[in-house]
Amino acid sequence: MMFHYRFRTAGRAGSSQHGRRHFGTSLPRYRSRERSKISEAFPACTPPSRLLVMNSRVRTEPLLGDFPLSIPGDSYSVVVLLQGYSEPQGTEGAQRADGSVTLLLPTTWKSQGARGEAPAGPDTQRALEQAASGPVLVDTGGPWARDALLAALAAHGVTPDAVTLVVGTHGHSDHVGSLGAFPRAALLVSHDFCLPGGLYLPHGLSEARPLRLGPGLEIWATPGHAGLGDVSVVLAGTSVGTVVVAGDVFEREHDGDTWRQLSEDPEAQERSRQRVLAAADVIVPGHGGPFRVFRGPGDPSAS
Amino acid sequence: MMFHYRFRTAGRAGSSQHGRRHFGTSLPRYRSRERSKISEAFPACTPPSRLLVMNSRVRTEPLLGDFPLSIPGDSYSVVVLLQGYSEPQGTEGAQRADGSVTLLLPTTWKSQGARGEAPAGPDTQRALEQAASGPVLVDTGGPWARDALLAALAAHGVTPDAVTLVVGTHGHSDHVGSLGAFPRAALLVSHDFCLPGGLYLPHGLSEARPLRLGPGLEIWATPGHAGLGDVSVVLAGTSVGTVVVAGDVFEREHDGDTWRQLSEDPEAQERSRQRVLAAADVIVPGHGGPFRVFRGPGDPSAS
Repeated sequence: MMFHYRFRTAGRAGSSQHGRRHFGTSLPRYRSRERSKISEAFPACTPPSRLLVMNSRVRTEPLLGDFPLSIPGDSYSVVVLLQGYSEPQGTEGAQRADGSVTLLLPTTWKSQGARGEAPAGPDTQRALEQAASGPVLVDTGGPWARDALLAALAAHGVTPDAVTLVVGTHGHSDHVGSLGAFPRAALLVSHDFCLPGGLYLPHGLSEARPLRLGPGLEIWATPGHAGLGDVSVVLAGTSVGTVVVAGDVFEREHDGDTWRQLSEDPEAQERSRQRVLAAADVIVPGHGGPFRVFRGPGDPSAS
Repeated sequence: MMFHYRFRTAGRAGSSQHGRRHFGTSLPRYRSRERSKISEAFPACTPPSRLLVMNSRVRTEPLLGDFPLSIPGDSYSVVVLLQGYSEPQGTEGAQRADGSVTLLLPTTWKSQGARGEAPAGPDTQRALEQAASGPVLVDTGGPWARDALLAALAAHGVTPDAVTLVVGTHGHSDHVGSLGAFPRAALLVSHDFCLPGGLYLPHGLSEARPLRLGPGLEIWATPGHAGLGDVSVVLAGTSVGTVVVAGDVFEREHDGDTWRQLSEDPEAQERSRQRVLAAADVIVPGHGGPFRVFRGPGDPSAS
C-alpha cells in the first residue's frame, strides 16, 4: 500500500530497461579518518531561507571525522552509524552495496532505561511527535548489516526496543532490510506512516508541505530515485547547521550523472536535489560519506 | 538503490496529495472458511497464450479453502501463508493493514534438513535458479507479522534459514517488513536482486522480458502501484492453472477504483492489471483473499 495520498502523474512510458551501473570507487564503510573537531569548527546556527540561493554556485567537501560520525545539536544529535557504499565487483556489472544508516538522538533522551513516549494514535501529528521523542533511525541498511547496526546502536546506549521511530527514505532492500529489528518503533517508510502493529495513519506530506516531527526536525517529500514516495529527514540547529539525511537523492558527494541511471524519475529527483542543496549545510547521502554544502561564490561563511 | 536498469519516463507532475483511502470491509486474516477440494475441482493444465483474451469479459470469484490455502503444482506448490487485509479504524482515515504472504515450495524440496542450493554469483541466471531451488517467500508482511509468519512457515516444515529467496513485490512497509528474518536468502525486492550479504547482480527484467526462475516460474515487471519497480510472481502448472502473486497490483478481488487512489502510476498499473488478468487463473492480491479468474463469455472452461 502507499497510503493516504493521490499522485498526480502525467502518462509516461513505463518499461524499465537493463542498464549497467557505473561507479567510481567508494570508501569502505568502516575506514577511520583523521579526526576533525566538528563542533568547534562549525558552531550551531539558524539556517536562513535557502530559496534564493538555487542559482548560486554550490561547492561541497567531505565532512571528516572518525566513524561513527557524531554531530551535536540543539534538539537532536546526529550520528552517522554506518556509512553507505557501492563497490563494483568484477567486470560483469555486479555491485556490493549498502545504504547509510543515521541515528537522531533527542538531547533530552537518557539511555539508562528511559524510552521515549510510546507512539499512540489516531491523532497523526501527536503520534509523529511522540514517535520522534526517542531515538530515530533513518534507514537500516540491508539485512546483512543487522549485527553491525545493533552493535553501533549499543555503543550509543540504544537498544532495539528503545528506538521509537524508523524512517525509511525509500523501500529498497539496502535501506529497509532490518525494519523487523525494531518491533516497538513506529515506521515512516516512504509516505506510509504506521504505529507498531500496523495502524496506518493519514497525513498531508507533499513537496509543498513537510511533516514536522519536533523542534527543527522535519520530513520532506523528495521524490525521484525510487519513485514519488521518497522522503528525506531535515534537522536544523546542529553544530554544522542544517543536516539533511537524503537517502538516495544523492548517491554520494560526487555522483555526476550516475544518479540519473538509477532514478525512476530524474526530473523529480533533480528538483529534489536542488531543494536539498538550497537548504542543507551537511548532506548524508545513501552510498557515501556525509559532505558539507557551501552556497555563494565559494565563501563558506555564506552558508 | 534501484539497480541495473534505466527508466524511460515522460515528465509528470510529481507532488503527492493527501487523500483518504476508501475501503469496504475486508475479511480478517485468519478466519477459517468452508473447505473446497481444490485439487479435485481444478486439475493441472498448461495455460494457453493469454494475449488474445484482453477484450473478453472477465469474471472472478473467491478461491475458497481453509487457511493457509495450499495449491499443489507440477514444479512448486503454492501456500498462501497469511492473507492480506486492510480495515478502516475509526472515522479519521486510519487503517489497520498488512500484506499477503505466499510461499512457493519446490516439489523436489524435502523439509527434513535439506536446503536448496545456496545462491552464488556472479552469473545472474544461475543465481536466480539456485535461489528458486528452495522455498521462495513472496512478501513478508509488516514487521508485526513476523511471529505469525515464522509459525506458518514452521507448520510447513520451513525454518527461516531454509528460505532461499524472498521476493518483495514492492518496498512498502506492509510487504517487506521482515526481510531481516531470512539472512540466508537471496532477495529480489522490486527490481533489485542481491545475494545474501548484499552482492547485487544485474539482470534484464522489463515488461517485455520476464525473469525465469525455474520450471513454470517467472518474475514479471508489473509497474504502477509503488512506481516503476513493482514485480509479480507467476507460476504455471498448478492444480488451478497459472497462479499470479500480484502484490498490490490488485488490492483485493473487488477493488473498484480504490486502487487508483493508492497508485503512483495508474496508467502503468492498469496495463499491469490487464496483463495479469489475461494470464492468471488465480490471483493472490495484496490485501484480500486469492480469487479465480475466468475469461470468455462466462464459461469457466474457457480458461
